[in-house]
Amino acid sequence: MDWLERITWTADGLVPVIAQEKDSGDVLMFAWMNREALARTAELGEAVYWSRSRHRLWHKGEESGHVQKVHSIRIDCDQDVVLLRITQLGHEPGIACHTGRHSCFFEELHTTADGQKAWQAVDPVLKDPATIYRS
Amino acid sequence: MDWLERITWTADGLVPVIAQEKDSGDVLMFAWMNREALARTAELGEAVYWSRSRHRLWHKGEESGHVQKVHSIRIDCDQDVVLLRITQLGHEPGIACHTGRHSCFFEELHTTADGQKAWQAVDPVLKDPATIYRS
Repeated sequence: MDWLERITWTADGLVPVIAQEKDSGDVLMFAWMNREALARTAELGEAVYWSRSRHRLWHKGEESGHVQKVHSIRIDCDQDVVLLRITQLGHEPGIACHTGRHSCFFEELHTTADGQKAWQAVDPVLKDPATIYRS
Repeated sequence: MDWLERITWTADGLVPVIAQEKDSGDVLMFAWMNREALARTAELGEAVYWSRSRHRLWHKGEESGHVQKVHSIRIDCDQDVVLLRITQLGHEPGIACHTGRHSCFFEELHTTADGQKAWQAVDPVLKDPATIYRS
């Protein structure tokens, strides 16, 4: 498919993907796709990533039910990054993170009382991960 | 600095960075930082990336004047992606892309009349790049 060849894939055949919640604008997660994952995402209208740890396609929500409905697929000016606009299904508000939080970007750099910089978790856990992933 | 060591750097000593416009929520660009770039970004309050093509620190806006004021710095649950919330300075509306567009993510996947998928530029050029970058 020609549109897939427009993308500059990494040496491993992957492309980085940013998932942004359509209604809130929140950046929920960052993951990777290979050609098959992106083709299936476009066909299915749901996000299918490539799991670099499990070395297989990962239909987001296949275990958790937290499926991502895809509204649009964009690429950047170098054709080497994909931006998805999605609705995060399965919980209200949406849970994209395996920690049970809305977004994977929940730690922010703050300056502590003694002038040091430190990362602080600033977003709440919405659901206990133990109840999201059934073994 | 301990907070820098919290990050999982790539083998090349880099971390991918998403720049999101604070007020609009728009994802403007994707780039990379090394330790020094991230340290300077935190210190300066302006985005400093690592240019992989020029192999040097790249203080965004150093040529174009399109500086990014940084409001917050977040990391994701794997500590291997950074999310900046920024104000894109130098033009109204902000121009982050070297093509003179607001965002680098200006091409969207559409289905054409004959049922084929194709990328289409959907955002306008706000300023001629020739007038942004003086030689």
